[in-house]
Amino acid sequence: MATVYQQMATDELRQEVGELRAQVEATKAKNLSLDMARGKPSPEQVDISRPLLSVLNEDSDLFDEGVDCSNYGCFEGIPSARKLAGAFLGVPAEQTIVLGSSSLNIMQSVLIHYWEKGVPGYTPWSKLDHVKWLCPSPGYDRHFGLTEDLGIENVPVPMTETGPDMDVVEKLCAEDDSIKGMFCVPKYSNPTGVTYSDDTVIRLATMKAAPDFRIVWDNAYCMHDLTEDGDKLLNIHGIAATAGNEDRILEVASTSKITFPGAGVAFFGSSEANVREVAQTLKVGLISANKLNQLAHVRFFPTIEALHQHMMRHAGFLRPRFALVQEKLAAGLGTTGCATWTNPRGGYFVSFDAQPGSAKRIVALCREMGVTLTPAGATWPYGKDPADTNIRIAPTYPSLDELGAALDILVLATKTVCAELALEARA
Amino acid sequence: MATVYQQMATDELRQEVGELRAQVEATKAKNLSLDMARGKPSPEQVDISRPLLSVLNEDSDLFDEGVDCSNYGCFEGIPSARKLAGAFLGVPAEQTIVLGSSSLNIMQSVLIHYWEKGVPGYTPWSKLDHVKWLCPSPGYDRHFGLTEDLGIENVPVPMTETGPDMDVVEKLCAEDDSIKGMFCVPKYSNPTGVTYSDDTVIRLATMKAAPDFRIVWDNAYCMHDLTEDGDKLLNIHGIAATAGNEDRILEVASTSKITFPGAGVAFFGSSEANVREVAQTLKVGLISANKLNQLAHVRFFPTIEALHQHMMRHAGFLRPRFALVQEKLAAGLGTTGCATWTNPRGGYFVSFDAQPGSAKRIVALCREMGVTLTPAGATWPYGKDPADTNIRIAPTYPSLDELGAALDILVLATKTVCAELALEARA
Repeated sequence: MATVYQQMATDELRQEVGELRAQVEATKAKNLSLDMARGKPSPEQVDISRPLLSVLNEDSDLFDEGVDCSNYGCFEGIPSARKLAGAFLGVPAEQTIVLGSSSLNIMQSVLIHYWEKGVPGYTPWSKLDHVKWLCPSPGYDRHFGLTEDLGIENVPVPMTETGPDMDVVEKLCAEDDSIKGMFCVPKYSNPTGVTYSDDTVIRLATMKAAPDFRIVWDNAYCMHDLTEDGDKLLNIHGIAATAGNEDRILEVASTSKITFPGAGVAFFGSSEANVREVAQTLKVGLISANKLNQLAHVRFFPTIEALHQHMMRHAGFLRPRFALVQEKLAAGLGTTGCATWTNPRGGYFVSFDAQPGSAKRIVALCREMGVTLTPAGATWPYGKDPADTNIRIAPTYPSLDELGAALDILVLATKTVCAELALEARA
Repeated sequence: MATVYQQMATDELRQEVGELRAQVEATKAKNLSLDMARGKPSPEQVDISRPLLSVLNEDSDLFDEGVDCSNYGCFEGIPSARKLAGAFLGVPAEQTIVLGSSSLNIMQSVLIHYWEKGVPGYTPWSKLDHVKWLCPSPGYDRHFGLTEDLGIENVPVPMTETGPDMDVVEKLCAEDDSIKGMFCVPKYSNPTGVTYSDDTVIRLATMKAAPDFRIVWDNAYCMHDLTEDGDKLLNIHGIAATAGNEDRILEVASTSKITFPGAGVAFFGSSEANVREVAQTLKVGLISANKLNQLAHVRFFPTIEALHQHMMRHAGFLRPRFALVQEKLAAGLGTTGCATWTNPRGGYFVSFDAQPGSAKRIVALCREMGVTLTPAGATWPYGKDPADTNIRIAPTYPSLDELGAALDILVLATKTVCAELALEARA
């Protein structure tokens, strides 16, 4: 689709660019400092978890089902926390491990383990000539960093409205057994907000792939609906098990965006065999995780329903922010053809696609006007967005006023770059 | 030195063995279940840290010197915690990283990093034909597990009363640059309780070794004096820096045996360059550690002096236990020649050496009588104590009554095995 600027006469376009540039200069003069870069809850939103800090005090019973949470032991996590993890991840409690706050850290530990020792029964990935990893893109930069750090080749696969393009994924996995795994954020995917369709989940669970192919099923946003009527994600474990692929699925999640970022608890869920093997491995470098924090969490969330109610309070902070993104972008760019964007029903991000070859310029121009965005390209492996279109919008941290101001600047930058590109194309 | 049993006439010895065996059978009949295996504080001892659980509540200020501890960020640790870490480890705050509860986990992460990527400027250890690691023995089984897990060859070096035998260490390091590191517990070493002498510290800091040789300086017990008049350990960092070896020292510690085991905070301290590089590396797999737990800890311990006072309360629980070990062993074995043992002024363990070829039998016999000990050999790389003499006694967890009963059984088992060996030698 042609943009409004591409349709303008050159004189008119030149004048438009001049006017947009004047607005840019006026905005710069305001010396703003706004941040739409990272997926952090706002301070007010974090504060709804403050009662968690009062759950334990010096007089508390520190036992959970017979486990002393105040001393070493119970590596796999305290019983109540494993039950919560099971309800959270959709596996039996026995198929979970509950650890410190970081699911990223669990993913890294497991990948390093397979890198060094191999999936049991198979060659360590580090001993293979070449290992590839599928990265639905746009996706999550910190995922890509884990495999890049190990020297694994990250291979982008296109994201669609139903999840990764499964025709591409199936073809690659069937033909190339150097592909050893794939990152998935199956619900409210980072950054598109897409929830994988049932068909996508079934195909991922049952497709042909290397026997030591593993899916990092990062269910970071499985509880992060914006409304009571959230997206429904199919439970992948049962389907994988029926197909004999139960070891393929490495699910993780955490409470970092539920209670306190960086100070929550993190979950691992997989097959019985994987849980046993992963626990055995992680024990080499950890005696036991912070069980007191686990205890505080399970007393704060005695049931998964209590956790859901808490998430609905979070949603109360997030809904107006996500609505403002849609409103500002539609009002500012809706008729320009300069960009498209997603409208997720949960999660933490909106994915924004501008004209090819413009994302880096837009992000740079926003920065000149005082708005920090996630670096353009960050949503692709190696930071290389082949079409240079994608920008991740993280609307959760700023106040509504700040968010509105930042979005106005994003709109202005997008129009300016779009108009300039149209003018440059005529030179 | 000959044991009393070796000096007995054969008839007398046979009768003695019979009597000891009768005592063993009588003890078995009691169906006891006692544990002297792992270095855990007793429940009453842990309880002195309960006020820590009341430090933060829902109304608390959650900022530390401008850092919001309730949200992501501040990877290296909150400012106050880094100051405490600096005082703890003997380095400037800027040369510390404060992370989750486990120093073992930090050691593992750093070793894996060097294994995969190498010490900056040098070949990754994984790409070398062979990598060796010095393990002062008897030592800490979980240390040995870290390097064993990476396929590094653990090389035992003898422990002396002033630390590792430095003549051996210096010779090995000067001659063999496949030796890439060494584990040290420099104060109240696990399990001997030895504090390294000034001369040992100086030689470790200044000796010739491979340029990418690293010392894991696990100062786990640096605050764990049994009395006000604790052992003094020389600060190794300054000496290493003067010799141009400041990057050699990787110091770690944690509050696991200060506040709550598994739920404390852990410290890393090293040169500026190492801290920068290690932080950069660890960030790949961690957004930020649990800063709320850091905040609670620094408010509980506003100064290193407050921490020391807390440790003196811990010492009140430990002194009678360590005294009982000396008393029971001296009374039961002092004149037999069957064993020697250390008498540490701090830490968590007593190292016990029986006659060559007897440790496994003693541990097995204790188990038959209902006493669990750390497996014989665990204090040596690969679980192989070449002389089969060493047993680690962990006196901290049981009550005094239980500890006394367990020590009586250890005495009985040691005498029985010693007498039986003497008899068998005559057959």
